[in-house]
Amino acid sequence: MPTFQPVRGMRDLLPEEAETLTYVIAKARETAELYGYKEVITPVVEPYELLSAKAGEEIRQRMFTFKDLGNRTVALRPEFTSSIARLATTTLKNEPKPLRTLSVGSVYRYDEPQRGRYREFWQSDFEVIGSNKPEADAEIVLLTNSLMKAAGLRNYVFKIGHIGVIRGILSQENVDDKLQNAILQRMDKKEYNEAFKLITSEKCRTTLQGLIELKSSKAFETVEKMKAYVKDYDEAEAAADNLLEILKLVTESGCPIETVEPGFGRGLEYYTGMIFEVYIPELDIALGGGGRYDRLIEVFGGEPTPATGVAHGLDRIALATKMQKTAVSTRREKRVLVIPVKEELKVAALRISQTLREAGIPVEFEVMGRKMTKALEDADRRQMDYAVIVGEKELKEGAVVVRDLAKREQTVIAIRKLAEKIRN
Amino acid sequence: MPTFQPVRGMRDLLPEEAETLTYVIAKARETAELYGYKEVITPVVEPYELLSAKAGEEIRQRMFTFKDLGNRTVALRPEFTSSIARLATTTLKNEPKPLRTLSVGSVYRYDEPQRGRYREFWQSDFEVIGSNKPEADAEIVLLTNSLMKAAGLRNYVFKIGHIGVIRGILSQENVDDKLQNAILQRMDKKEYNEAFKLITSEKCRTTLQGLIELKSSKAFETVEKMKAYVKDYDEAEAAADNLLEILKLVTESGCPIETVEPGFGRGLEYYTGMIFEVYIPELDIALGGGGRYDRLIEVFGGEPTPATGVAHGLDRIALATKMQKTAVSTRREKRVLVIPVKEELKVAALRISQTLREAGIPVEFEVMGRKMTKALEDADRRQMDYAVIVGEKELKEGAVVVRDLAKREQTVIAIRKLAEKIRN
Repeated sequence: MPTFQPVRGMRDLLPEEAETLTYVIAKARETAELYGYKEVITPVVEPYELLSAKAGEEIRQRMFTFKDLGNRTVALRPEFTSSIARLATTTLKNEPKPLRTLSVGSVYRYDEPQRGRYREFWQSDFEVIGSNKPEADAEIVLLTNSLMKAAGLRNYVFKIGHIGVIRGILSQENVDDKLQNAILQRMDKKEYNEAFKLITSEKCRTTLQGLIELKSSKAFETVEKMKAYVKDYDEAEAAADNLLEILKLVTESGCPIETVEPGFGRGLEYYTGMIFEVYIPELDIALGGGGRYDRLIEVFGGEPTPATGVAHGLDRIALATKMQKTAVSTRREKRVLVIPVKEELKVAALRISQTLREAGIPVEFEVMGRKMTKALEDADRRQMDYAVIVGEKELKEGAVVVRDLAKREQTVIAIRKLAEKIRN
Repeated sequence: MPTFQPVRGMRDLLPEEAETLTYVIAKARETAELYGYKEVITPVVEPYELLSAKAGEEIRQRMFTFKDLGNRTVALRPEFTSSIARLATTTLKNEPKPLRTLSVGSVYRYDEPQRGRYREFWQSDFEVIGSNKPEADAEIVLLTNSLMKAAGLRNYVFKIGHIGVIRGILSQENVDDKLQNAILQRMDKKEYNEAFKLITSEKCRTTLQGLIELKSSKAFETVEKMKAYVKDYDEAEAAADNLLEILKLVTESGCPIETVEPGFGRGLEYYTGMIFEVYIPELDIALGGGGRYDRLIEVFGGEPTPATGVAHGLDRIALATKMQKTAVSTRREKRVLVIPVKEELKVAALRISQTLREAGIPVEFEVMGRKMTKALEDADRRQMDYAVIVGEKELKEGAVVVRDLAKREQTVIAIRKLAEKIRN
């Protein structure tokens, strides 16, 4: 039989990579605790109807969709927000607002694989449901900043925009929602000519074109210009004001925003307000992004409820820490190999191993039945710290031989003092 | 639009349940570290061919199988061992033995839902690859015992058996592997009559029947009787000897085994040696189980390699801690709500929140724009510890009002002493 490979676009994380990812996941949980977000766990498999309700045509086409054995059309979640919206409109409907949730886990999209982009990837998703205030938007940017720092990243930039500015212009020009989505999707991919083909009003095209070209070295300046530029469109102007306030809250709280991009769209159809992404210079895909989605809960059958949220690409953040050489190893304890000198001493050696583990010391027991020299060679190769050698003579006196593998020294020590010796 | 529900057999874990599950997951990782198992992360979606290669007819029929957009037949993993066998025969082929791996995550089986059994569930899977020694088998039982204890369970029992005893008898009676699997599967479900219909030899049937009926209040006594009972079958006798040695290693290391069940099969076809399960009295499904599978790596295209492993049902363990009322809450820090007295103080209040978070204190910021009394009522209802009220007068003096919500007392305190005050 030939050997097997993972499914195309999926991959295995070997111990070092897995450790970095679980470290980043732990940091996401710590960030959630610091900001008062409670973790909920929703299924990987959800009804197709749920996931496609507001996912955007592009994601819809790239979902892993299938029928289960009960002939239900289901799909693997491409993101968490739909599942949270489901909870917010059912089980958690009557929870006091704001409802702050965290989700952590794997999500699935049939994208073309590239560096940092796989068909199975990991996200932490933070949602604040029930607040229409700019401080809620500021919070999701700030917690993203906290997560980046906690993961060990030092060099990253935020890009921010406001979907309300573009939607405000389009609405006032009587472009319907569906066409707005199509235009935003093309703008998000920077296919501006394609986007403009969908717009009949000359003035509208000119305004959008000018908006896209707006640039300044300073974020506040850009938003001020933006506000002046769209002054003929009331909703757009109000949106620019809202962005200004969010920007102020965020930067004054110690999170500098470098780039305001007035033409910035993001892939998902459900955004209605501020949107943002975070990048590192070494990678051209976002490490995280999110924004406000005030109409989504309604679409899922709930009362009209404002909401804002963010998803972080945890395996991308893990990759980023590696690229910026700030990946943290979480190992602290000394590693020990316990070796019985002969067959008859296995029970005693195993009992000593258990005592050490109960004292919190990681122990590998020699399960290969190798001779002492072989076992020690292997311990050396795997850079263990100590070998505990259980021999007949020492055992009679309640002792074992401890070998410091780095120093190549060994001493006899009483079993009751063993944990202390290894720890110090 | 009607509201959505999760797919049948799947479920949401709300904050309290999610916290217990993540706590048990953390304990599985700690156990892995103590025993020298390194975590690897493999995809949820694997080639159908891989997962079905040795999964057993029953599981094969209950997999979530589908074609991806590239027309590959894939399935959601029903367990981890196939993925680990894939790694052990490819990427990790040349790693020094023993190879000790941990996998943690969700797995999928289309079972009939019942209490503690869902179509999506969580496992921690520990595998030792490369050792044919009883100390390796003992290790997976011992680490299971450690995990149960670490999760907080006090009242649980181990059931142990040896597939080699039954296979030894059947092989010597010239029953081929395929028929052996069919017989074992029925025996596992205690459908003994169905199993016996597949056996032509009268002697074989009688021996198996006697074996199943073997019972004793003491585990060692049962294995001794078993050994005597199968003395005409060499392989079966050797298997009983092996079980005796494992039992000795395990019990002498502080993990008592109550039940030896000679007729015990387990669902998966790939077992070749010792098998075991762990139960609590309150639940009739196993919290974990595993055993030796010496021929599986070969089936996956690798060199013949002995191996043994165990999978723990993490959401079942979480349920068990709830049933035994030993579920642990991991929350330690005080919870704080920060409220700006008026609109203009939002920036300052947010900055104070960030300072507290940087000091490790969980802060919820008032994002609803509510009046003070409303915000305080909400903080009370959600049993928060403190409210930090940011007012103009105090702020001018570098101070805020801190309200102890339990004691209903409030004091003015300097911002620089705030973190200390809340922590003590």
